Amino acid sequence: MTRNVRIGLLGCGNVGGGLVTLLGERREQIRERHGIDLEISSVLVRNGEKKRRGVDPEIITTRAADVFASDPDIVVELIGGVEDAARFVGAAIDSRRSVVTANKALLAAQGSEVFARAKRHGVRVGFEASVCGGVPVIRTLRVGLAGDCVESLTGILNGTCNYILTLMEEGQSFEDALAKAQELGFAEAEPSLDVDGHDALQKLTILSAIAFGGVPAGEVQLSGIRGVTLRDVRRALREGRVIRHVASSRIDDGVLRLSVRLELLAAGDPLAAVRYENNALVVRARAAGELTFLGRGAGALPTASAVLADIIDIAQAA
Amino acid sequence: MTRNVRIGLLGCGNVGGGLVTLLGERREQIRERHGIDLEISSVLVRNGEKKRRGVDPEIITTRAADVFASDPDIVVELIGGVEDAARFVGAAIDSRRSVVTANKALLAAQGSEVFARAKRHGVRVGFEASVCGGVPVIRTLRVGLAGDCVESLTGILNGTCNYILTLMEEGQSFEDALAKAQELGFAEAEPSLDVDGHDALQKLTILSAIAFGGVPAGEVQLSGIRGVTLRDVRRALREGRVIRHVASSRIDDGVLRLSVRLELLAAGDPLAAVRYENNALVVRARAAGELTFLGRGAGALPTASAVLADIIDIAQAA
Repeated sequence: MTRNVRIGLLGCGNVGGGLVTLLGERREQIRERHGIDLEISSVLVRNGEKKRRGVDPEIITTRAADVFASDPDIVVELIGGVEDAARFVGAAIDSRRSVVTANKALLAAQGSEVFARAKRHGVRVGFEASVCGGVPVIRTLRVGLAGDCVESLTGILNGTCNYILTLMEEGQSFEDALAKAQELGFAEAEPSLDVDGHDALQKLTILSAIAFGGVPAGEVQLSGIRGVTLRDVRRALREGRVIRHVASSRIDDGVLRLSVRLELLAAGDPLAAVRYENNALVVRARAAGELTFLGRGAGALPTASAVLADIIDIAQAA
Repeated sequence: MTRNVRIGLLGCGNVGGGLVTLLGERREQIRERHGIDLEISSVLVRNGEKKRRGVDPEIITTRAADVFASDPDIVVELIGGVEDAARFVGAAIDSRRSVVTANKALLAAQGSEVFARAKRHGVRVGFEASVCGGVPVIRTLRVGLAGDCVESLTGILNGTCNYILTLMEEGQSFEDALAKAQELGFAEAEPSLDVDGHDALQKLTILSAIAFGGVPAGEVQLSGIRGVTLRDVRRALREGRVIRHVASSRIDDGVLRLSVRLELLAAGDPLAAVRYENNALVVRARAAGELTFLGRGAGALPTASAVLADIIDIAQAA
């Protein structure tokens, strides 16, 4: 018995395109394994003239209303940014549709409102793809550690910063390393979101809300990687250590403390081994002990893999 | 609104005792966060005379029938072994109760029958705790990568073997290292299940059934760690490498190939950094790329944490 599930796709850029490709490849297997036929009912794009591989031109539109009119069961928000995304996600929830999103900026800014609204309307919000791309850290915190007590989170959450620091260990300058990251497409053209730590802080905020939900927020410590010199990196290496841009959170005196900053790590530290654009998260939980997750934290296909897993999970529960 | 969920507990040894402790600590928070009040309705033990901390003596019994008569919503099987466990799990499913189990021997031997039976009766089987203790590898393969295509699994799945190899790197003999592992309680008194690779193969079989379900089984390669000498370990270290007991599976020529054997790993290999009784799994997936999971693969509390997460997940979906 196969059930048809319609997906309204908002955004068909890097990750949206990856999702179209992945769904094209896996649709048949998902039908066999999970009994769900996933069909894209409509795709919102900015430029309606551009051809999209694997997408029927008939279902492409530049008006969000068309996507909602296509009667989707699940709305997938991949346009990014806060304002438009918040409006579309709100409209989807109000029309009792579950949402899947990769939008860390939206969730860091308005996560609790979005989740409360979804709860009120009895729909779900899947957001695995918003942090650490294809590495399933959100599901682990939400479900895998539901009976445990998280004590701290420590991670490398921004691939661009880690890529730059790794290339500096290989002797390249900050500027050359940043240019390389931009060329490869994982640093933004305007890189301050990455290198000043805002992106890592958004992700840390999302993870901490799940792990420590309800604890009042304390002081936030935020610094980026612009100050690092080749001399610093070399001195660390000579001492058998590495410089990493580390995001961490823990409860201290009843208050949640978030910090994103440069740290000098010993070679044996699990985060010291994280190289190039990889991400990692170390979760310390009272019963489970220390759990480490490592993988590609960005990129079209890893992120699309997380989006598709959320879609299947929600479609199966419906 | 709080819903009462009754748990029938079969077995109150190491993991069962850990579950009782953890539930005692977390019950209030689970009620608040998840709206579920988890109550143990009956506990099956072998020795009814022994006092159990945190368990009302009134609900302890030596007869499985009493557990079923206590009208549990979920049956938690922690007695281990295959025969009795299979009978109890079958009875629970036939009476339309979902099951949570940590029993890798049962699932490696009869997993497909157990899952088919559960599907027929519309109940769920949670088995996160059966592999890698508190490290959520099963949920990741089942849900987190549901839209992806797993290409290979490679892991260190037996903590005892890894503990022995790590202690040998520190200069101890095989026999001394094994004695130490037994003293610490994670090696069996009869250690052949661990050191000959059977335990790792059972876990690999369970993981591979999820990742590659339906692919016909090919040749299985199984060897243990008894042959390793201090000289081998030292020679590897001199060459900047380490010896690890590695379980791996992949599809090759349309056939599923499982292997559990000693491998010589370069220092940069993610599995080379796994020390002492830790477990690790590297999953290679087509879209998500390479994901690595690391943590404590055994022990009462880590395993109980995984059992409790499954209980909450099933209770919430009900």
